[in-house]
Amino acid sequence: MAVLLGRRSPIAGWAKRAMPTAAQFLHENPNEMTLLEMLGSTNLRKSSPEDYRVLRDIVNTFERYSGVGNDIQLTLAEHSANELIMGEKKREYEKGIMDPSKFAPGHHIFQVLHTVKKSPLFQMLRKMPKGAALKTHDTSMCSSRAVIEMTYRENLWVCTTHKGCRVEEFRFAAEKPKDMRHKDGEWQPMEKLRELRGEENLRKYLRVRLSMYPLSSFRTNAHAWDHMMGIFTLLDGLLQYAPLWGDYYYRALEEFYADGVQYLEVRTVVPQLYCLDGSRLPQRETVQIYLDTLERFKKEHPGFIDSKLIYAPLRHVQPEVVGQYVKQCTELNKEFPDFVVGFDLVGQEDKGHPLSKFAEELLKLPEHIDFYFHAGQTNWYGSHVDQNLLDAIVLGTKRISHGYTITKHPLLMRLAKYLNIALEVCPVSNQVLQLGSDYRNHPAATLIAANVPMVISSGNPAFWRAAPLSHDFYMAFLGIAPMNADLKFLKRTAKNSIRYSSLSDEAKAEAMEKWKKEWDEWVEKIVDPKENVSEEENK
Amino acid sequence: MAVLLGRRSPIAGWAKRAMPTAAQFLHENPNEMTLLEMLGSTNLRKSSPEDYRVLRDIVNTFERYSGVGNDIQLTLAEHSANELIMGEKKREYEKGIMDPSKFAPGHHIFQVLHTVKKSPLFQMLRKMPKGAALKTHDTSMCSSRAVIEMTYRENLWVCTTHKGCRVEEFRFAAEKPKDMRHKDGEWQPMEKLRELRGEENLRKYLRVRLSMYPLSSFRTNAHAWDHMMGIFTLLDGLLQYAPLWGDYYYRALEEFYADGVQYLEVRTVVPQLYCLDGSRLPQRETVQIYLDTLERFKKEHPGFIDSKLIYAPLRHVQPEVVGQYVKQCTELNKEFPDFVVGFDLVGQEDKGHPLSKFAEELLKLPEHIDFYFHAGQTNWYGSHVDQNLLDAIVLGTKRISHGYTITKHPLLMRLAKYLNIALEVCPVSNQVLQLGSDYRNHPAATLIAANVPMVISSGNPAFWRAAPLSHDFYMAFLGIAPMNADLKFLKRTAKNSIRYSSLSDEAKAEAMEKWKKEWDEWVEKIVDPKENVSEEENK
Repeated sequence: MAVLLGRRSPIAGWAKRAMPTAAQFLHENPNEMTLLEMLGSTNLRKSSPEDYRVLRDIVNTFERYSGVGNDIQLTLAEHSANELIMGEKKREYEKGIMDPSKFAPGHHIFQVLHTVKKSPLFQMLRKMPKGAALKTHDTSMCSSRAVIEMTYRENLWVCTTHKGCRVEEFRFAAEKPKDMRHKDGEWQPMEKLRELRGEENLRKYLRVRLSMYPLSSFRTNAHAWDHMMGIFTLLDGLLQYAPLWGDYYYRALEEFYADGVQYLEVRTVVPQLYCLDGSRLPQRETVQIYLDTLERFKKEHPGFIDSKLIYAPLRHVQPEVVGQYVKQCTELNKEFPDFVVGFDLVGQEDKGHPLSKFAEELLKLPEHIDFYFHAGQTNWYGSHVDQNLLDAIVLGTKRISHGYTITKHPLLMRLAKYLNIALEVCPVSNQVLQLGSDYRNHPAATLIAANVPMVISSGNPAFWRAAPLSHDFYMAFLGIAPMNADLKFLKRTAKNSIRYSSLSDEAKAEAMEKWKKEWDEWVEKIVDPKENVSEEENK
Repeated sequence: MAVLLGRRSPIAGWAKRAMPTAAQFLHENPNEMTLLEMLGSTNLRKSSPEDYRVLRDIVNTFERYSGVGNDIQLTLAEHSANELIMGEKKREYEKGIMDPSKFAPGHHIFQVLHTVKKSPLFQMLRKMPKGAALKTHDTSMCSSRAVIEMTYRENLWVCTTHKGCRVEEFRFAAEKPKDMRHKDGEWQPMEKLRELRGEENLRKYLRVRLSMYPLSSFRTNAHAWDHMMGIFTLLDGLLQYAPLWGDYYYRALEEFYADGVQYLEVRTVVPQLYCLDGSRLPQRETVQIYLDTLERFKKEHPGFIDSKLIYAPLRHVQPEVVGQYVKQCTELNKEFPDFVVGFDLVGQEDKGHPLSKFAEELLKLPEHIDFYFHAGQTNWYGSHVDQNLLDAIVLGTKRISHGYTITKHPLLMRLAKYLNIALEVCPVSNQVLQLGSDYRNHPAATLIAANVPMVISSGNPAFWRAAPLSHDFYMAFLGIAPMNADLKFLKRTAKNSIRYSSLSDEAKAEAMEKWKKEWDEWVEKIVDPKENVSEEENK
């Protein structure tokens, strides 16, 4: 930027004072107020074309410097990788501008799953070390394929209606269960159903039954929620079987790690698991199984960082019950102080009570257990639901899950920034649960522009047939962030996921190192021509 | 708000200093930075339930005080009217929360035109004096019904394809025209087509042909634009007939005035009108007809304020052509200094050149003619199209038409506020042209929250079968603004439309008076029980 400000120009006043170029001006006055005042006191209509260009550059530079990732310095290798990544991003972006129907983030994910899979940009993002997945719900983490494998376990019964056509419930039991949720249901061994419907048919059916796919349109978001809750309920009987619980978690860790996630914070209702005889174990056993599984996984995957639990029961209860939740969480934390580290309430906010109703009970949670509240996952602006955002912040939450409405609350947005509260943004979830449709209209764009702390998360990726975290990164990078958001944005977002985790400062430093190692390897692979050639050959 | 801050509470520090209640605190420290610092230095997790309530109230009050309309004081009569209006608004809002499928702003306008018509809230808003419509395009203002009446004029020929099934072109001529746009077209007198297809059938057909209705879904927004441009093109042959031009404008003024609009700024390409013999008049004649018609209308409607023109040719041209536009505008302004007051470029931004390409030419426009640029009517964040927002501001625009992406540019949003540049928000247009779908996700919510100058406008209401301005007000009030936005919001928005108009300060004062008179009458009618009873009886 070398344009000199003309001496006779209306902006020559401040030009003469100190800085002949916009770059110097910025260097000496990196202050937004100065910019506002400068423009406010200038008659822009009297600008010469040079003045205009200079001013334009100044404002542009200010903007560029204020978005997510602009504090990042790229290494030489990263610069090269960035060029390749941005080449692919721009190719998709420009193709989209020419023909918007070809732009994946303009569509429902279910309509573009196949296209996205083939995108070279997506392929790069898949392998990218993403740091942490800070918002995942424990029984929607494993791919449906993996869950279907689990239906081959011994002693599994299935309750169906419509002559075996609709699967309503699973249960592990030595004998045919007597009770059932659906009065017209019929229990039979899983093998029998497999025979009856044909193995391949049943697998296909279950893949649909265990996800929202292909329903890209519901009458309202409440209907989408009902559908999703139905999947959770169906999974309960299968996954809450004590001998299975740990295996599911292990498999989830495998799938997330394979998708570039080295650390997870898992929200769980901490269900009481059941045994073959139908008896229920205490909640602490559920956590113990989690912990044992995690230790095993960590031993077998030295590159993996860690995982922690956020106790997150359902919000559709009375304050007394929340009081019990708080006690339960406190006890679990006492027994597993480094593992059960947070508290949240889950379920559709529109239907539950607002946080304010529970405030008194919530404030009883010991201070060292952090809040990670779901809040503002709604588009009812100004409703009591929307107020959860305010309450989450005033109650001292460490992060906010979703916070979809926060851009309608500039003060809360500034508070989040000032108090260093990160938003867990889940682009695909917001679309599938019908909060928004086109990713280009996702409110996180404003968070990115204003550099409000945020992490990219997925929520229940298995329910939308998405990769554990890659589809959310792809949609955020290509569809939500500005066109010129590049590797700096990706690196900052990955690093933020560790920065805003519940890890201690020491643990964060170690985590950063583990992440950095994988990151550098990834960058190396992107720029390595040999690597790229072999990928080409593999096609 | 009377909660006293506990002395032992962690926030007792600043509590002791000066203010025992949140209200007093606010009164003495109405400063956001103080609030941020106060919350930043407080361990919120140590709050007592009382502390929490007080803090919550403080933040809430700050929020409430910063939105659009909170500078407005309501009179006693307005208070009563407000209660009735908010009663209706809350009824619709709460019904929506219970069953989102019943919430009109959650749907495409074409699906709810009938429901909205019956809404008591809409009925109130219809009659509300809205001030000015600052963004209207001159040939999409009159209802299709009115346009269809105009097809009964003498000497009208119609060119059809598909055996008379598709109307392609209109032309007034003494004899059958020889040239046509469609090579397969066939000219016939309009009466003949009416006989052929049946009068009622043809009227029905034309009502569809002259609007986007019922197409609530296009493959992309580019397809929606193409469809809309096709309507403009079809209308050209009909409306650009010199003897008709003034009548169309007169009828538009009637319809807008009946919808509560007392002042209009009309964007026009200033077409050269044609005569029966096919000859074209100079552009100044077009403006002269406008002016004569306006004078006649004002004489016959003393409550009406005024109307002005913004010269707004198509943007899909080379810089030299923009240079000619600028000259043309300068000349028209010389001849009609109080009537042709502004300059803009129109047409789909995604396809045209960015403003920056025209900057040099644009800066030649005399300073007293204002810019009213279309900018940011896109969702390609960070693209060259999106940059138009920046350029519009740096070029010294007085208002921004749409600015749909501005919430992705916090700095530009603050600049708009600081430089007092109003955004012309057109909710229905944005939906029909496929920028967004659910009104609850419209970015203007952020503008409302941050009190960025904005006016509500309609653009091309006839093309979506909407009232001239009432549907946009309804969607903005119920679907975009927060639940508690009330008559203060409506009053501020109406007043803003005059405040941000091109009127001189003196003219604005007079305009405000004319508006105020109608406003007070409207308020009176809302609270008058007699009036309400008779409305009931009329049903």
